[in-house]
Amino acid sequence: MIISGFHSIESVLIKRPELIQKLFLVSSENKRSLKILHLANNSGVSYETVDPKEIGSIAGNSKHQGFVAHISSISFLSEKDILPRLSKNKNSKVLILDSVQDPRNLGACLRSALAFDFDAVITNKDGSSPVNEHVFKTSVGAILSLNIFYVANLSRSIAILKEIGFWVLGFDGKGDTSIYSESFPSKTAVVLGSEGGGIRKLVKKNCDQLIKIPISKDVESLNISVATGIVLYEVQRQDAGVK
Amino acid sequence: MIISGFHSIESVLIKRPELIQKLFLVSSENKRSLKILHLANNSGVSYETVDPKEIGSIAGNSKHQGFVAHISSISFLSEKDILPRLSKNKNSKVLILDSVQDPRNLGACLRSALAFDFDAVITNKDGSSPVNEHVFKTSVGAILSLNIFYVANLSRSIAILKEIGFWVLGFDGKGDTSIYSESFPSKTAVVLGSEGGGIRKLVKKNCDQLIKIPISKDVESLNISVATGIVLYEVQRQDAGVK
Repeated sequence: MIISGFHSIESVLIKRPELIQKLFLVSSENKRSLKILHLANNSGVSYETVDPKEIGSIAGNSKHQGFVAHISSISFLSEKDILPRLSKNKNSKVLILDSVQDPRNLGACLRSALAFDFDAVITNKDGSSPVNEHVFKTSVGAILSLNIFYVANLSRSIAILKEIGFWVLGFDGKGDTSIYSESFPSKTAVVLGSEGGGIRKLVKKNCDQLIKIPISKDVESLNISVATGIVLYEVQRQDAGVK
Repeated sequence: MIISGFHSIESVLIKRPELIQKLFLVSSENKRSLKILHLANNSGVSYETVDPKEIGSIAGNSKHQGFVAHISSISFLSEKDILPRLSKNKNSKVLILDSVQDPRNLGACLRSALAFDFDAVITNKDGSSPVNEHVFKTSVGAILSLNIFYVANLSRSIAILKEIGFWVLGFDGKGDTSIYSESFPSKTAVVLGSEGGGIRKLVKKNCDQLIKIPISKDVESLNISVATGIVLYEVQRQDAGVK
């Protein structure tokens, strides 16, 4: 995968420098270049300085800000890792994303999950956006810090979560109760579905409860990354002891 | 402006058919085509059926779903309209966006403003994204229903809002208080800034108070449309009488 831009490169150098196969940058004396060089030197990442014309073709876009890296593909967790990773905590918050296909929406959801201290994100392998450079960029590096599970079957993952004490709450425009009246338990998994279709039928059936965010009748739905941000905020707000 | 896609065209036909200068669609017997034809006939909008090859070049993109329209530019409100439009309501919620440049983020913010019953959106003419087809699409037609003010000077607009009894709250990662502990008054204006720089210094200085959304130290900030959605949700949640 090729990633580019100051913030993306900076976050990999800080969190997972071992992922960088090759780093390219335009030689410059500015603060950002010096910061990237300092981080690269500190973590033993070798780099190559290239001229301004060349870096655009390496990046494949014009938004590189003078920084590009080839990184090895990030390995994610799978269904068999759910039990060992998530059964121990007494308090735990998990985000389940069903078939979010827009890379920018997926990236924004991951960024919010890290921001609101969620322990894990579980998403379906087939039907969701692959983690590409757009997801990476919009997540602002959250991908590098989160426990992300790519699973074949979301319903089976939900069954495992229920077994280890999670309460699984689906969010849907036609939900039975309002988020305003909910108290989230200490082990909560929230499920949100794709922009077009919401949570798929079978996945919905496996949720313990379906909840809606009350919105004006003039709007059919919220943007999926906005809806996800609101749900994660509300769970975290209650977790922080605010009633 | 050229807009395309089923939902965009449907929303203009329902809310503001007089804006449509010309409507093009691919002849088809499917449910969506029949719905658009029904709406066009009901509102006296003339249309032209074109073949599938042609419509892509009219739309200028491949995501038209068989529906394209030329619409006249939407006229927005200006600073002088603030007083007559917003001074009467005893309860009122206003969103102020400072220099949001990404059209998709701006569109998502407008969609949330309508969803959470905000009365108006005020944004700066210079420095914000113009309302183009991307904003239109991401707003899912919210543009057609909202009171949107494009103003030359946000600080002057804030001064007017204060005069008519609004409490003006800026949201910033370095805010003095947490959103968790805030009670919003009946006339609330919230201010959010651009993705890169947040609220500009002078605008910030004119806010009555600066508030933060508490997030993990691992994340520098939330996506601007997510942060805006959370703030609007929280104001609306309190307005709905939930404490």
